[in-house]
Amino acid sequence: MRVGMVGGGGPKSFFGAPHRRAILMDNTADLTAGALRSGAEESLAAARELCFARGYPDWRTLVDAESALPAGERIDYLTIVTPNDAHFGPAEAAAAAGIAVLCEKPLTTTLDEARRLQALVLSEEVPFLVAHTYTGYPMVMLARELVLGGTIGEIRKVEAWYRQGWLSARQEAAGNKQASWREDPAKAGASGCGGDIGIHAYMFIRFAANLHAVRLLARMKSVVPGRPLDDDFTALAELNNGAIATVSASQITTGAENDNGVRIIGTTGTLSWSHLHFDQLEHCVNGQPVRIYRQGADCTYLPASIRPYLRLPAGHPEGFHEALANLHRSLEWTIRRARGEPAPTPFAHPGIADGVAGMAFIEAAVQSATGGGWVDVPRGR
Amino acid sequence: MRVGMVGGGGPKSFFGAPHRRAILMDNTADLTAGALRSGAEESLAAARELCFARGYPDWRTLVDAESALPAGERIDYLTIVTPNDAHFGPAEAAAAAGIAVLCEKPLTTTLDEARRLQALVLSEEVPFLVAHTYTGYPMVMLARELVLGGTIGEIRKVEAWYRQGWLSARQEAAGNKQASWREDPAKAGASGCGGDIGIHAYMFIRFAANLHAVRLLARMKSVVPGRPLDDDFTALAELNNGAIATVSASQITTGAENDNGVRIIGTTGTLSWSHLHFDQLEHCVNGQPVRIYRQGADCTYLPASIRPYLRLPAGHPEGFHEALANLHRSLEWTIRRARGEPAPTPFAHPGIADGVAGMAFIEAAVQSATGGGWVDVPRGR
Amino acid sequence: MRVGMVGGGGPKSFFGAPHRRAILMDNTADLTAGALRSGAEESLAAARELCFARGYPDWRTLVDAESALPAGERIDYLTIVTPNDAHFGPAEAAAAAGIAVLCEKPLTTTLDEARRLQALVLSEEVPFLVAHTYTGYPMVMLARELVLGGTIGEIRKVEAWYRQGWLSARQEAAGNKQASWREDPAKAGASGCGGDIGIHAYMFIRFAANLHAVRLLARMKSVVPGRPLDDDFTALAELNNGAIATVSASQITTGAENDNGVRIIGTTGTLSWSHLHFDQLEHCVNGQPVRIYRQGADCTYLPASIRPYLRLPAGHPEGFHEALANLHRSLEWTIRRARGEPAPTPFAHPGIADGVAGMAFIEAAVQSATGGGWVDVPRGR
Amino acid sequence: MRVGMVGGGGPKSFFGAPHRRAILMDNTADLTAGALRSGAEESLAAARELCFARGYPDWRTLVDAESALPAGERIDYLTIVTPNDAHFGPAEAAAAAGIAVLCEKPLTTTLDEARRLQALVLSEEVPFLVAHTYTGYPMVMLARELVLGGTIGEIRKVEAWYRQGWLSARQEAAGNKQASWREDPAKAGASGCGGDIGIHAYMFIRFAANLHAVRLLARMKSVVPGRPLDDDFTALAELNNGAIATVSASQITTGAENDNGVRIIGTTGTLSWSHLHFDQLEHCVNGQPVRIYRQGADCTYLPASIRPYLRLPAGHPEGFHEALANLHRSLEWTIRRARGEPAPTPFAHPGIADGVAGMAFIEAAVQSATGGGWVDVPRGR
Repeated sequence: MRVGMVGGGGPKSFFGAPHRRAILMDNTADLTAGALRSGAEESLAAARELCFARGYPDWRTLVDAESALPAGERIDYLTIVTPNDAHFGPAEAAAAAGIAVLCEKPLTTTLDEARRLQALVLSEEVPFLVAHTYTGYPMVMLARELVLGGTIGEIRKVEAWYRQGWLSARQEAAGNKQASWREDPAKAGASGCGGDIGIHAYMFIRFAANLHAVRLLARMKSVVPGRPLDDDFTALAELNNGAIATVSASQITTGAENDNGVRIIGTTGTLSWSHLHFDQLEHCVNGQPVRIYRQGADCTYLPASIRPYLRLPAGHPEGFHEALANLHRSLEWTIRRARGEPAPTPFAHPGIADGVAGMAFIEAAVQSATGGGWVDVPRGR
Repeated sequence: MRVGMVGGGGPKSFFGAPHRRAILMDNTADLTAGALRSGAEESLAAARELCFARGYPDWRTLVDAESALPAGERIDYLTIVTPNDAHFGPAEAAAAAGIAVLCEKPLTTTLDEARRLQALVLSEEVPFLVAHTYTGYPMVMLARELVLGGTIGEIRKVEAWYRQGWLSARQEAAGNKQASWREDPAKAGASGCGGDIGIHAYMFIRFAANLHAVRLLARMKSVVPGRPLDDDFTALAELNNGAIATVSASQITTGAENDNGVRIIGTTGTLSWSHLHFDQLEHCVNGQPVRIYRQGADCTYLPASIRPYLRLPAGHPEGFHEALANLHRSLEWTIRRARGEPAPTPFAHPGIADGVAGMAFIEAAVQSATGGGWVDVPRGR
Repeated sequence: MRVGMVGGGGPKSFFGAPHRRAILMDNTADLTAGALRSGAEESLAAARELCFARGYPDWRTLVDAESALPAGERIDYLTIVTPNDAHFGPAEAAAAAGIAVLCEKPLTTTLDEARRLQALVLSEEVPFLVAHTYTGYPMVMLARELVLGGTIGEIRKVEAWYRQGWLSARQEAAGNKQASWREDPAKAGASGCGGDIGIHAYMFIRFAANLHAVRLLARMKSVVPGRPLDDDFTALAELNNGAIATVSASQITTGAENDNGVRIIGTTGTLSWSHLHFDQLEHCVNGQPVRIYRQGADCTYLPASIRPYLRLPAGHPEGFHEALANLHRSLEWTIRRARGEPAPTPFAHPGIADGVAGMAFIEAAVQSATGGGWVDVPRGR
Repeated sequence: MRVGMVGGGGPKSFFGAPHRRAILMDNTADLTAGALRSGAEESLAAARELCFARGYPDWRTLVDAESALPAGERIDYLTIVTPNDAHFGPAEAAAAAGIAVLCEKPLTTTLDEARRLQALVLSEEVPFLVAHTYTGYPMVMLARELVLGGTIGEIRKVEAWYRQGWLSARQEAAGNKQASWREDPAKAGASGCGGDIGIHAYMFIRFAANLHAVRLLARMKSVVPGRPLDDDFTALAELNNGAIATVSASQITTGAENDNGVRIIGTTGTLSWSHLHFDQLEHCVNGQPVRIYRQGADCTYLPASIRPYLRLPAGHPEGFHEALANLHRSLEWTIRRARGEPAPTPFAHPGIADGVAGMAFIEAAVQSATGGGWVDVPRGR
């Protein structure tokens, strides 16, 4: 695979390096084309420094130039790791040029943009994934498979959460670049905590429980004084099958590191996954011992759909980089199969419809938090 | 101490036996007087069988007879372990007779009753505790002490939860007595899950975080078909210091046993306690190692206010019975001190005001869940 | 039950109070007769203060007086909670008088004494238990049942451990009474750490794995300078079925509280129990999810032999006191059945043969640690 | 960096792929030269298939050809991932040619070979690391730093362990290639379990506790019938500072996945690390709350020597691949600094002396297990 990247080349960038590691990890892809920073010179310098084969001054030039190259030379897909407000531009350009995309979340800053992008992606039939990295953990994938297989019966309730503590002080005022853009409505969109991590929690509901919200009520707070966007987010929701859900996200839970997870409660069992114990999935049934599923390429009890996503035998922890690499893997397999090349069946990792649905969820939450009551979640697709 | 008991003598009673064990455990009290079942004959038989010194046919006779005895013979306090609708009667009678009370939660079935009882208890100056057993765990007591000592700064958010799975099927239709009265509005009051266990979760906020709700929004659901009362309860709340809170309780979380706890989030630290690891308290601070406090009579770092409530050295688990015994201990010390006898300072375990506040919380939740919006929590006291 | 007690009445006694709580907990027994301290006056005073019905100046007087009482008045069994060197005397006297005994561990200070006591107990047919409290935990009892039921196939290896940190400094020089007698060969016997807690670890092998050592090699160290007895103990052993075992005990593992447990490794599965998570038992099988068994009176998957030993529903922790009370319960049931009274079948908690076997294990360990090689474990019975 | 690799190219190879991922992960190195399988044709095909720039028919040709290339083209170091008996040849050839080496453990199959290799490496001044991957986990590195900084006082005891279950059945008879060579004395050396994983456990003592064994007593067993080498290994040891140690390794602990770790017990504290919770380090002190250190590039409390080895903020798990990549990173930095290029100070990951010491430990263990008594550990260097 020849991979392009937009953003992620700054010295303070968080997500550029993990994506590069994920791309390189399995020796199936090269860093081919980069427009890695906002300034043209810095962008070209970053591409050189980070060993991209071709550097570009900006994403528009990148897409234009790459799409002009012959099929055997141009990039196979574009990874977008810019702040939220700079997702739409390169994603639209790439899709229009027929180039596949792996885009960071949230998909865009507004639902309207998301829908326009979706229309394009669907009409161009471009492979498109949204980087909901936590869905790349094999034990989250297993939760989905068990749900789909009926292991826990009918789902009655889903609880999803994401707790962090890093914004419990006003980091953005102290020059923390990661904090600054996340708390700037022009760059982040209408929600801070909700759009940044609440959307990850919601994606557990879509991905692992295979359900979606139809109505919700949200509380969004700027707990730390002087912050224009929410740093704490809670939503109650009703799901499409009548089940209830809770989505809790917080960036002011002092001392919490990256504590996300999901509990899926069915008539006959409950599945629980926590990022703190990412390599196991708990399955509880009334009146039975708890079952702890563990991950490993040699875990014969894992479904065939998941085992190709594991690289090491059980007991050898594969973590965040591997989860991210699994999304790149799914996109690669999707692309290959679209071309008629042999590749395993890719797992149903979040795509353009999920990206739109995430924006619909956030937009409804903002509306509810402003108005104070229950609102319908706009249709995603 | 001479202890009386109302209820708890039936063969299917859950809480009678734990209270009796808690009373006897420390060899400071006798089972003196019992009106242990609803029928007169069964009540007398149960008192004999359970080795109470004096049996009575009903609670009214018990209170009348005991209060007629000389001070050196009559019971020192009355433990009430009946279903919710049968708390008010014996509690009122005992208080009117000047007999101290340890009453199971929720205090009553309505806020109005609770307030009337409170007025009487205050005017009679009767020692009165409500059996919020989880506040008897030393590590919950430590959370309160650390909060009061300023260890985590200003509190910004509190999350309290209580998850069970035993009502995920319709046990009440299968003849389970514990389930039957809990799902009967005439016996349980206006809320099932909220009044039974949501109130425990709320009490973490009052006791450990030393705050209370002023406004709330609640979702109450009867998830299992055919159930008149809620079996799932979630409330968002605003607390008296401006902090936000979440109170989640569920009886349909299949496979969950008795999973309650609290997370108290302050400006400089977070305290987390879970009943699943009842003998430790977690203290997280940004940029520091996590601290795990552990319980033990020999834990010199525990405050002097807590160490008398521990019976064994660290590493020797004291569990539910000891937590319950700690409430009896606090009541005993309160009674002794009221009489001028020497006794250690009792810990501030939930009293009549907390009982009223619990009912105010539930009443507001029912109002919100019915109407759908935010409501003010009536003043407790 | 009318219960007698020898020892355990001093202000610094550790084990007197837990035994009294265990005896009283279930309202089936009274504190009837006590010879609770070494001095006659202190002993009588302690009996009064601790509410024993009858106080005695010393254990000999207690046994003589009680055995002279009619059957309906004299004690049903005697609990011995003195230091090691003061077990044999009262145990022998009680057994000779036909009074049942629950004796603290280790049974005696020498194997020879243990064997003499055993001969007497067997000839008098006196019910006799040794207080290996950890075998009273229901999840340890479950391990035994699963082993006996063949759940893990043939046992190949057993690892048992017991780690404490309280003797990592020279407490005995600082006036700590618990430390002083444990490090005094005249009171403790030939081994400090081994006889105090190594013997508990070994008992996991006998009780839970249902095996015993036939050969062993031991390393015993006095790690803290100036200490005459070992404070760290490790033994490698060969078991009667050819399996291998490791028994590790340490009192100098700084910061460890009371960290004991056992891992039983079979051809088809491994069972692991740790006191740190006393309410669960882990069952691992190659190629399968881990199973976590949990305790609770309502856990229908627990064998009928264990459920009567649980007092509370799952999720309500029963800890050390309840484990100890379970040994008293087994002795009570044994006594009742010996008299022809109705009582459930008692569980096979450690008896006189196990007490002797413990001494044989320690004696062999001392011999090995002195000589440096493998030695045969003397036959227990 | 231009990296060469010997071995690791077969379809059943376990460690080739992890090393390749570790090499590529950080975009600082290329797969330059490979002699990846034992047959010449297969070797060349594997190099093509795995995208090595230059393929070779065997390691001798690789070393000869690469050392003939100009400095700016030849490999910077050679990674050796063959079975144990095929470490010495390529390592010696590379060292003789002045090419740095990262060699899988154990260093060789005999102590004699190890010493000869060491003499060469020292005389040629070739950077040389041994792939004790677990020392690449940042929390193990932190343990070492805390020990060196005196955090736990004088070390009195070290316990190291490594438990697996995959060989509890006779996999080697079922055609499992990984099992076959590990149980073949000609390929594995004189010890199976000890040389394969016991040596990892021992390396915790050298690396994290900074001590080494001077005397030991070992028990080595072939628990599964028909197996020529040990599948269970236990050693008691005395360390150079007078402390005692236990090294336990087992491949027949049914259901255990890759459960290794170390407990370092000092006069004033104990440090515990377990691979099952690889991202934290526990620090226990008598009379204080437990401290849990957590890993993350943004953990400001981590020493400056460790933070460059972390790639992600706290809460984003970095696992086995990253630990392995940390060894490659240390070798890279060592090579760069040897050349006068700028590079951070590499951490003291295990080198040639540790490789020799590992062989000395195993050789002593074999001698002890055969003879039955304590033996001196031969001097490593």
